[in-house]
Amino acid sequence: MKSSEWESTTNIIFLQESMLSSASSFRNYRGVLNWCVVMLVLSNARLFLENLLRYGILVDPIQVVSLFLKDPYSWPAACLVIVSNVFIFVALYTERKLAMGSISEKVGLLIYIFNLTVILCFPMVVVLKLPSITPVGGAFTLGVYTILFLKLYSYKDVNRWCRVRTQVKARPSSPSASSCMQSHVSYPGNLSLRDMYYFVFAPTLCYELNFPRSESIRMGFLLRRLFEMVGNCTLLYSVKPVFILQEMDYSRMTERLLRLAVPNHLIWLIFFYCFFHSSMNFVAELLRFGDREFYRDWWNSETITYFWQNWNIPVHKWCLRHFYKPLLRRGAGKLLSQSAVFFASAFFHEYLVSVPLRMFRLWAFMGMMAQLPLAWFVAKFLRGNYGNAAVWLSLIIGQPIAVLMYVHDYYVTHCQDDPTITEAL
Amino acid sequence: MKSSEWESTTNIIFLQESMLSSASSFRNYRGVLNWCVVMLVLSNARLFLENLLRYGILVDPIQVVSLFLKDPYSWPAACLVIVSNVFIFVALYTERKLAMGSISEKVGLLIYIFNLTVILCFPMVVVLKLPSITPVGGAFTLGVYTILFLKLYSYKDVNRWCRVRTQVKARPSSPSASSCMQSHVSYPGNLSLRDMYYFVFAPTLCYELNFPRSESIRMGFLLRRLFEMVGNCTLLYSVKPVFILQEMDYSRMTERLLRLAVPNHLIWLIFFYCFFHSSMNFVAELLRFGDREFYRDWWNSETITYFWQNWNIPVHKWCLRHFYKPLLRRGAGKLLSQSAVFFASAFFHEYLVSVPLRMFRLWAFMGMMAQLPLAWFVAKFLRGNYGNAAVWLSLIIGQPIAVLMYVHDYYVTHCQDDPTITEAL
Repeated sequence: MKSSEWESTTNIIFLQESMLSSASSFRNYRGVLNWCVVMLVLSNARLFLENLLRYGILVDPIQVVSLFLKDPYSWPAACLVIVSNVFIFVALYTERKLAMGSISEKVGLLIYIFNLTVILCFPMVVVLKLPSITPVGGAFTLGVYTILFLKLYSYKDVNRWCRVRTQVKARPSSPSASSCMQSHVSYPGNLSLRDMYYFVFAPTLCYELNFPRSESIRMGFLLRRLFEMVGNCTLLYSVKPVFILQEMDYSRMTERLLRLAVPNHLIWLIFFYCFFHSSMNFVAELLRFGDREFYRDWWNSETITYFWQNWNIPVHKWCLRHFYKPLLRRGAGKLLSQSAVFFASAFFHEYLVSVPLRMFRLWAFMGMMAQLPLAWFVAKFLRGNYGNAAVWLSLIIGQPIAVLMYVHDYYVTHCQDDPTITEAL
Repeated sequence: MKSSEWESTTNIIFLQESMLSSASSFRNYRGVLNWCVVMLVLSNARLFLENLLRYGILVDPIQVVSLFLKDPYSWPAACLVIVSNVFIFVALYTERKLAMGSISEKVGLLIYIFNLTVILCFPMVVVLKLPSITPVGGAFTLGVYTILFLKLYSYKDVNRWCRVRTQVKARPSSPSASSCMQSHVSYPGNLSLRDMYYFVFAPTLCYELNFPRSESIRMGFLLRRLFEMVGNCTLLYSVKPVFILQEMDYSRMTERLLRLAVPNHLIWLIFFYCFFHSSMNFVAELLRFGDREFYRDWWNSETITYFWQNWNIPVHKWCLRHFYKPLLRRGAGKLLSQSAVFFASAFFHEYLVSVPLRMFRLWAFMGMMAQLPLAWFVAKFLRGNYGNAAVWLSLIIGQPIAVLMYVHDYYVTHCQDDPTITEAL
């Protein structure tokens, strides 16, 4: 017994680093994420309760609606979204004609170029010319049209590839034909209205003939995501920062920037969770859409490039499949193709901000293009946790600079003539 | 070329969950930890700069010193710490006599009981009777004596086990003797002053004849830990909450509790990092002490029990080796032994708080004992991330309740007669 006492009391000790040391290979910090959520909810619950007791319910439904509508009898944004169906029909019809061989590839391409150009220009013109559309309504409409543009571009590409493949298959010695036979739907069979609308509503930008599908709709999962969306909107409302800017005073701007940075960053984080996790998973669950990779672990990114490749997977996949790889195949260099992707992304950022605000200032465009030298700098000089901290800093500080620029310019141009805008902001 | 185009543009898609879903097995959130650090530093940097510009340097070195000393010519806490060497010598001397066989095991045990009892009672009596000792100085002294108590208890046990083992080894058929020969130092050789003081200063409570040692002192590591300690102290100073309590008004207490919870929790987190990571690693690096497991991943704990087993590894190891396992060997049940450990822990919590404050209110004791039903509740009803959130909530809300109780009672009993205490708090 004495001998067993010795054995059971001897600990096996060896050289080891503390878990928080950078030398340690331990990386499981799931609990820290829960801590952030608990702290966010707790601190907001207190504020929420305090304000509720002191002022009553402040959320004015009419004020929320007025973000989208100026005149309750004209719904320009909703009308524009309904009109977007026309472009979907045009794309589907063109594909059917192409599949039947009634029109040549060249004519099909021309129709597509026309269709896609109109998708981008038509809502822009309407938003710019129609005074009854609000900035929020305009941004929403343009967002819907941009998503549609990317989706139909992908639809066009994939169907074209399918036609090429069918021709290859027709020849006897085709190595890649077998994989086609395993799929449930093969090329011309996919050109149905049902398939088209499934793709339009599915949370992806890359068209596939056969999306992976989940077994069934889990009601608990659906309700949790719905609950999260409602909860996050409440959170969003409570961290809403207040912008009051009189003039372009640089010392005050710097102070304001620092004050703005944290709530702006929190809003972005809540938006990220709400859109990329809750909403997309909600829609995916409803549609039994199997591929739920809407984001990867961008929070661990140690370079700017890794962040842009992992925070928005639907757009990243689209860029890779329909923009970056085709460019490479046509002989463009890696750096050139990468810059082109950033350029396109910068264009769409500017498009989605400038048009609804009716101001062309290029802040969003420059913000995106500034990522290129920043990425080079971080990759060259910072490693590991320092690189990660630099990515976080660029998110926390970089964004509010652009936001502040727009807010300032919007205030200067609009607020003298329109007193309601100060409230809307 | 057309065929290869198709292949390179086909993504391999399969059913997968989003990373943030609880169904996903992804757990790498190291970046979230970096985010917390960046946010903490950023928000404090702003406050720090603002206050520095507005009020100048507010840290009064005399005020900091006055936390430890009332009268600059009498240093009771320092004297007590110096006196503690006497108990170390007594323990070493007793062990030498026991090793030589000059005194019997029984006499040795009696000397130890006397020595250990005096270690706990002597500083308590001094702190209670000496008016010149401050609460902070008293807490520091009692902390040092408590650590010494645990260390010498471990020293006694391990040396006794060694003697038992030497007797086992003397007999020819001993299976466990071989492991002893591999160690650099064997039993009576360890009873040196150098070995004793290495153990006293080493960041562990469990004595070993041969601690694992690192190769060399890394200066960069040492400086980083030193920098962290200084930085954390600045942070601690800037989140210091202000307690101003007039009377026991329950509705105001609740509001104050919620306001107190977040800064109190941040202070605890910074204290944890500063003590268990920076300081302990600093000392370990200086002493080339190899076993740096001062904490495990308590931030992921999904039960209260897991938290208590992993946040303070030196104490946990001591309890396991010198209290829990001996109890089990003597036939006590698992639940009884576990409760006994919590009881001992509750006793020491109360000892370290009540004596320096000169108030016996049992709040710390009750706080620790309340962990038992809480642990049962969390383990029974909450799982996974919900359990983790419950552990965080108990840390964020539970601690300030006890702190508030002491602060209130301290204020009521002391602040009428001593106006300097309000400042010290």
